[in-house]
Amino acid sequence: MLKPGATIGILGGGQLARMLALAGARLGLKSHVFSPVADDPAFDVCAAHTKAYFLDEAALAAFAESVDVVTYEFENVPARTAEVLEAHRPVRPNPKVLALTQDRLIEKEFVRGLGVATADFADVTNAESLARAVARLGRPSILKTRRFGYDGKGQTQIREGVDLAEAFAALGGAPCILEGFVPFSKEVSVVAARGLDGEFRAYDVCENVHERHILAVTTAPAAMSEATARAAVEMARKIAEAADYVGVIAVEMFVVADGSGERLVVNEIAPRVHNSGHWTLDGAVTSQFEQHMRAVAGMPLGATTRHGRQVTMQNLIGADVDRWADILREDGACLHLYGKTESRPGRKMGHVTRVKR
Amino acid sequence: MLKPGATIGILGGGQLARMLALAGARLGLKSHVFSPVADDPAFDVCAAHTKAYFLDEAALAAFAESVDVVTYEFENVPARTAEVLEAHRPVRPNPKVLALTQDRLIEKEFVRGLGVATADFADVTNAESLARAVARLGRPSILKTRRFGYDGKGQTQIREGVDLAEAFAALGGAPCILEGFVPFSKEVSVVAARGLDGEFRAYDVCENVHERHILAVTTAPAAMSEATARAAVEMARKIAEAADYVGVIAVEMFVVADGSGERLVVNEIAPRVHNSGHWTLDGAVTSQFEQHMRAVAGMPLGATTRHGRQVTMQNLIGADVDRWADILREDGACLHLYGKTESRPGRKMGHVTRVKR
Repeated sequence: MLKPGATIGILGGGQLARMLALAGARLGLKSHVFSPVADDPAFDVCAAHTKAYFLDEAALAAFAESVDVVTYEFENVPARTAEVLEAHRPVRPNPKVLALTQDRLIEKEFVRGLGVATADFADVTNAESLARAVARLGRPSILKTRRFGYDGKGQTQIREGVDLAEAFAALGGAPCILEGFVPFSKEVSVVAARGLDGEFRAYDVCENVHERHILAVTTAPAAMSEATARAAVEMARKIAEAADYVGVIAVEMFVVADGSGERLVVNEIAPRVHNSGHWTLDGAVTSQFEQHMRAVAGMPLGATTRHGRQVTMQNLIGADVDRWADILREDGACLHLYGKTESRPGRKMGHVTRVKR
Repeated sequence: MLKPGATIGILGGGQLARMLALAGARLGLKSHVFSPVADDPAFDVCAAHTKAYFLDEAALAAFAESVDVVTYEFENVPARTAEVLEAHRPVRPNPKVLALTQDRLIEKEFVRGLGVATADFADVTNAESLARAVARLGRPSILKTRRFGYDGKGQTQIREGVDLAEAFAALGGAPCILEGFVPFSKEVSVVAARGLDGEFRAYDVCENVHERHILAVTTAPAAMSEATARAAVEMARKIAEAADYVGVIAVEMFVVADGSGERLVVNEIAPRVHNSGHWTLDGAVTSQFEQHMRAVAGMPLGATTRHGRQVTMQNLIGADVDRWADILREDGACLHLYGKTESRPGRKMGHVTRVKR
C-alpha cells in the first residue's frame, strides 16, 4: 500500500485526469500528469507535469522514475508506452486491459468468453466480409472500426439501402466489426472498482441518455428491477476479475425488455473513470475519482453509498457551458467546470450534478 | 462577476489555501498561491505559486498583477501587505476586516458596538492596569495578548493565587486584554458567507469541542434551541454586514445556559474559512471553500443545505494521522489529508468527516 505523500503518475491531462488529481489531493496523494497537450486541464491542479509525446521514451522513463505508480485516463495508450512505463513502475489497471479494450473485436470475444451477453458481432476486413456479416446479422446493424472510436466517431449505421462498399470505405478501410442491432429499452452502466487485494465495490447502476452519440444525462439509480441491477453488477465483477483489474472500471450495457422480462447486453468496457460516474462526485460517499486513486495506490476501497433518493448528472457540452452563471444560482446544483479555455461544439466543458432528497 | 478561467490569488499556502484551491478548480477557477514557505500544502494543487516574503513588495505587486482578485487564508496578513495588494487588485474580504480581527481589543469593541454580547473585557497595558482589570472582572479570568494569539498561544489564566506581574511578564509585556470568565455550557460557531451583492447565507450552527486549546471535534447541527440557533446566525449576519464583508466568515460563540434559558456570547471572529466549517466538504451541498471562492469571485452563493441527520468532523492532530489506513477502511468515513510531510505534536495534519443518515 502506498502512503499519503506518494505520487501517482497519470497519463493524459484532460478532465478525467484533472478530477483524479483533485481527488488524490484530498488523500494527501500528489499527482504527476503526463500529456503532450500544453495547457491541458489537469496541469493546473497537479504537483508536477511533463509535457511530452506518448512515444517519447526518455520522457516516459523519467516520468515513471519520478512516481510510485502509473495510471491513465484514456484507453488508447499505445502498447509501447505501457511497456516502457511498466519497466520502471507498476501500471494500474494492468496494460493487458488496454490491449483488450482498444479493440472492439477482442473486447467482445473476451466478454462473450466469460458467458456474458454481447450484441451479435462479426469480424469485417473488407467489403466482401462485410456483405457476409450483413447477410448474417441483418439490417439495421452498426459498422464500427475495431480501434480508436469514441463518442460516435468511427462508426456508421447499415440501414436498408446503404451501399456496403461505400460504408466500409467511409471508415477508411480500417479493420471493422459489425454489430447486430439491439432493440434496447435503455442504456445503463456499472461503474465499479476493484482493489489491489481483489475487493470489488460497485456504485448504483445508472441510466444514461445520449444525444448525438455523446452522453447527455446520467441518472442514479437506474429504473430497473433489483434483480437486473444485481445481475449487471455481477457481470461487471466477472469482467473485472477475469481481467485481474485494479482501479475503476465502467461497463456500459443495454437493457432489453421483452415479453420474458429484462435482460442485459454488454456494449462496451471503459478501463478508467467514466463520464457516467461523474454523479458520484456529489452523489456518493466516495467519488469514482477518489476510488480509483485508492485502488491504484493499493489502499482500501471507500463506501459507494449514494446520497439522496436520486442523483442526476448533466453534461455541459460546447455552448451549454455559457449557462454557468444560471447554474451557480440554482439551488442545490453542483457545478463542475474543467478549465478548458475554448468551447467547441461537442466538447465536454463541464457537468452539473443534482441530488434529490 | 469573474468568469470561470479567472485566477484567484491566495495569501498563505497552508491547508486552508489548499482546500480553497481545490474547490476553486471545481468551478474552473485557477489559483495562484503566495507563501514564504517552501513545500507548503497548497503548492501541489495550484496553477501557479510565488514563494516570497509577505513584505516583499515587488513580489506582491507581480503576484497581484497576475491574478484577478486576492484573498487570504489567515488573519495576520500585515497591513502593509494588504495595502500593496489593494493598489493593484481588489482584496476580499476587505483589509479593514484584518485590522479589526488582528486585535482582540478592537474586535471586542466592534462587536459590542453592534449590540452583540461579548465577555467582559478590559484593556491591559502593564501590571497596574492588569491589577485594576482583575479587581473589576474577578478571578478566574483570562489574559490574552491583543495580537497574534491562536490555538491557546499568547494567553494565560488568571486563577486565584496567580501573581499578576508574573502573568503579564509571561506574555512578554505585550499589550493585552483581560477577558472575564464565561460559564459556558458549550462552544459553537456560525460559518457563513456574504456575497459581493450583500447576500448572506449561513451553514447550520455547529458545536465545537476543543482539546488543549485546539479544535478536536465539530458536530453539525449544534444541540441547541432553534431560537438560539437563529439568534446566532443573526449575530453573524450583523457582524458581516457591519464589516461590509465578502467571503466566508466564522464567528465563534459561547452558549451560556442559566435559569432564564440559553444566551450567546461572541468569543472570536475569523475572517476566513474556518476549521469548524470543514464538515461542509462532505456534509453540505456547497463546501465552505467553494462558497468562499464564489464570494470573492463575485459569483452567487451556493446552497448551504446539510447532508444527513448529523455531520461530525474530527481533526487529525500530530500522530492522529498515523491512523489513516484504519480511517480509509471505515465505512462512510471521508478522509482529508493536507499533504504535510512532517507530523509534529499539535500540528493539524488532516481531518475526517462522517455523515449520519
